[in-house]
Amino acid sequence: MRKLGLGCGIAAVVMLAAAVPLSAETPRREEIAQIVSARHDATVEALRNWIALPTIAAERRNTAEGAEYMRQLALDAGFQQAKVIPTDGVPGVFATLDAGADTTLGIYFMYDVKQFDPAEWSSPPLEGALVDRPGEGKTLVGRGAVNQKGPETAFLAAIKAIQASGRRLPVNLVLVAEGEEEVASTNFHQVVVVPEVRDALAKSIGVFIPAAAQGSEGNVTITLGAKGAVEFQLVVGGETSDAYPRTDIHSSNHARIESPAWRLVKALNTLVADDGHTPAIDGWFENVRPLSPRQKELIAQGAAQNPESEAKKLLGVGRWIDDEPYVTSLERLVSQPTVNIQGLVSGYTGPGGKTVLPGRAEAKLEFRLVPAMTKDEAVGKLKAHLAKRGFDDVRVTVSGGYGPNETDEDSALIRAQKILFERSGVPYSITPRNAGSWPGVIFNGAPLNLPASQFGVARGGGAHAPDEWFLIESNNPKVNGLDEATMAFVDYLYIVAEEAGKSGG
Amino acid sequence: MRKLGLGCGIAAVVMLAAAVPLSAETPRREEIAQIVSARHDATVEALRNWIALPTIAAERRNTAEGAEYMRQLALDAGFQQAKVIPTDGVPGVFATLDAGADTTLGIYFMYDVKQFDPAEWSSPPLEGALVDRPGEGKTLVGRGAVNQKGPETAFLAAIKAIQASGRRLPVNLVLVAEGEEEVASTNFHQVVVVPEVRDALAKSIGVFIPAAAQGSEGNVTITLGAKGAVEFQLVVGGETSDAYPRTDIHSSNHARIESPAWRLVKALNTLVADDGHTPAIDGWFENVRPLSPRQKELIAQGAAQNPESEAKKLLGVGRWIDDEPYVTSLERLVSQPTVNIQGLVSGYTGPGGKTVLPGRAEAKLEFRLVPAMTKDEAVGKLKAHLAKRGFDDVRVTVSGGYGPNETDEDSALIRAQKILFERSGVPYSITPRNAGSWPGVIFNGAPLNLPASQFGVARGGGAHAPDEWFLIESNNPKVNGLDEATMAFVDYLYIVAEEAGKSGG
Repeated sequence: MRKLGLGCGIAAVVMLAAAVPLSAETPRREEIAQIVSARHDATVEALRNWIALPTIAAERRNTAEGAEYMRQLALDAGFQQAKVIPTDGVPGVFATLDAGADTTLGIYFMYDVKQFDPAEWSSPPLEGALVDRPGEGKTLVGRGAVNQKGPETAFLAAIKAIQASGRRLPVNLVLVAEGEEEVASTNFHQVVVVPEVRDALAKSIGVFIPAAAQGSEGNVTITLGAKGAVEFQLVVGGETSDAYPRTDIHSSNHARIESPAWRLVKALNTLVADDGHTPAIDGWFENVRPLSPRQKELIAQGAAQNPESEAKKLLGVGRWIDDEPYVTSLERLVSQPTVNIQGLVSGYTGPGGKTVLPGRAEAKLEFRLVPAMTKDEAVGKLKAHLAKRGFDDVRVTVSGGYGPNETDEDSALIRAQKILFERSGVPYSITPRNAGSWPGVIFNGAPLNLPASQFGVARGGGAHAPDEWFLIESNNPKVNGLDEATMAFVDYLYIVAEEAGKSGG
Repeated sequence: MRKLGLGCGIAAVVMLAAAVPLSAETPRREEIAQIVSARHDATVEALRNWIALPTIAAERRNTAEGAEYMRQLALDAGFQQAKVIPTDGVPGVFATLDAGADTTLGIYFMYDVKQFDPAEWSSPPLEGALVDRPGEGKTLVGRGAVNQKGPETAFLAAIKAIQASGRRLPVNLVLVAEGEEEVASTNFHQVVVVPEVRDALAKSIGVFIPAAAQGSEGNVTITLGAKGAVEFQLVVGGETSDAYPRTDIHSSNHARIESPAWRLVKALNTLVADDGHTPAIDGWFENVRPLSPRQKELIAQGAAQNPESEAKKLLGVGRWIDDEPYVTSLERLVSQPTVNIQGLVSGYTGPGGKTVLPGRAEAKLEFRLVPAMTKDEAVGKLKAHLAKRGFDDVRVTVSGGYGPNETDEDSALIRAQKILFERSGVPYSITPRNAGSWPGVIFNGAPLNLPASQFGVARGGGAHAPDEWFLIESNNPKVNGLDEATMAFVDYLYIVAEEAGKSGG
């Protein structure tokens, strides 16, 4: 998942309901909880084993092995069928579990993990060492621990425990898994359009990804959607036109030879307004849906909960764009479709200077999209914009991405989250849209148009960073360890079944 | 020396005069030549020893040691006094040799060398291995071999040989040496303004740097000047304004936080016109002197000597700016003051993309200046240009540089070169101005206003590259090895004395 590292706090309406026992809603809950507890060590071992086999799409590492491992995990968890679905890149996995229930729920897994450098870790990243983390409890440290194998393992443990209690699941399950989440889900749409997969998903009331986003005081956030993200690179140089040298050459030649670096600057300059942030691509805002009153309400409530000074400190800035007030900055964060430069690289990049005319210049950029923009629309508009201005020598390479997603607050998927949090006394807030992104649009967009969400009452940290961790045994009774997180998935499935029965999804 | 790596061929009027014996001009030439020959091995060893002690300003390597070594080299060569002159950076060296002559000649040495990576060399760069080079002869391979210790060693050998023959030099010498040539002579002006140094130089008829620019067929080029070069960096980010983050942060935040990368693009965009090459800094062309008819004549003659197709092939381009004809491109190379981007670096620079908003963006730039622009003028105009447009958050760091230099074709320094080449049958051409740069302006500009030139009938290659070499024993009778190059310096000193006597310089 493309986590929003810092300052994602667009959260509102923190509710602190009194804890209500769940035994009434989850039949024979105590028995299932005992099974979960009895299997604790085995579940931890399963997570460690999975972490030991990292699939990394960018490195083409363990792609076939990771897919087969994922397929086996599904079969071991009671899915009646599970198959590897080839794509042009890393394969996906499709599995179904028919419990004879009225309601079918879609589950999305990612089985890949982010790259890592063992030298930066305090324990081997593939070992899954159990480490006591001050203020938290016993944690499992390894690449993928929180992003996303930890919460996914808890979900699998939940459905295994229900079945081990001799009962059928309250919902049927359709699982789709990919191994390219960390490279912007380049080929995952190919899995979802396979007729068998599409038809199975179409029967579901929605799709969720198991997540672990509980805060240090037990708080969680319901997210009603996420921006889309499209990554692309602009390249200009000898490889794109014979007006430029093919390698770096002596800089004096710029007197008579065009510079790819200047050309890139000129192309980039047309993409945002002189204020340095407002996108200026032709037609960019055409399909941007303004914030609804409810969305603004949620943002304002979130602002009141999260101090501005803390957000600025975490981000290391003294002010927001245009010196805007905090609430306006939060509305921007949720509502503005951006054109961001991730990186610039051309010619000499070491200390000081070097007398070269670069043979190549590259800008790494990224769009963040809001409803009702689409990836294809944004990329098409960029290309038309550049072509209209004669930048035929600037090559556009789209390296990945997807559009935004948005799920109704009144869908069974979201209603079930609220009910769970209220019944179990988990303080929660609602964010109208994550500024970070996940590929929910694959379910949320056409042709499936399903609710898509993230859910999980679990805790961890260090996604994309060294010493990634997942909380196994919590020191804080308000915060879930592995077993409590597993039970939250158990409870969620029963509430989803109940809510879907009321509304049909 | 900031060598013009490829395509510097703005050379004209190749003269092929019949060889005329020099014995009439250089008294007891044969005796001096015998001394040079007898000392051949010792001179090679002296060069190897010097190469073994590399001074590299950028790495603060052997700066004090290199200066002291330079001082000893001068004393060993017969200079009566030699002293280290401290600067704010690497020290200079000042030495004088009073021969009781009517004419005083200034000599400029650089004792520093370019950085190197031994892994890229086929013999250790500090060893000075003697290597047979196909088509050339016996060469000495080492960092500084051609740039500039080889030709400088030949010059020292020349004056030692004259003295060893029992005669006084035909000219008095004033030597100034620096250890920061490779970092754009940052502090060398501090050496030249020391009253004692300035007064000594002011008595000279001009200053030259020993060089080795003989072509593979023995041809040489007289250069009547060089563009100036000023290196600077533009930096914007958390370190320059609290509008930007201090480190790379999650890219979703660009929706509410300014981007240093976009800000840099906006600042850069104002520095050149939309054509991507014409400088657009306010007042940039104010003091640019147009080419004279004689300069255009030399350029046109040079174009006729150097095929366009070969120049394009060497540079790896298919066309010149604006698809201009060859002669126009050469006029540009000589006449246009440029604003070049040497490099861009910001945020993520690896393969593909990464979801960051950079905390810093840097552009490495360089001006190339033509008469009568000055470094201070160019830097002042840049700063005023950015300030006028409100770019107060873009930090300008000037890391080095100097203005252009220009020397009259009729000065004794240049006349002596022509006479030497004609008498000795060396084919030569004249270039009105090198597009590459050397700090001749330190002598050529105010307050000294002296002729300044490069001279040397020697051969080598690989400046700033691995396997830098200097020709010791030539396979081609038209091309000089070490001993012939040494004798060319001997002859040059006598002709300079003769010509200066005619005109007073």
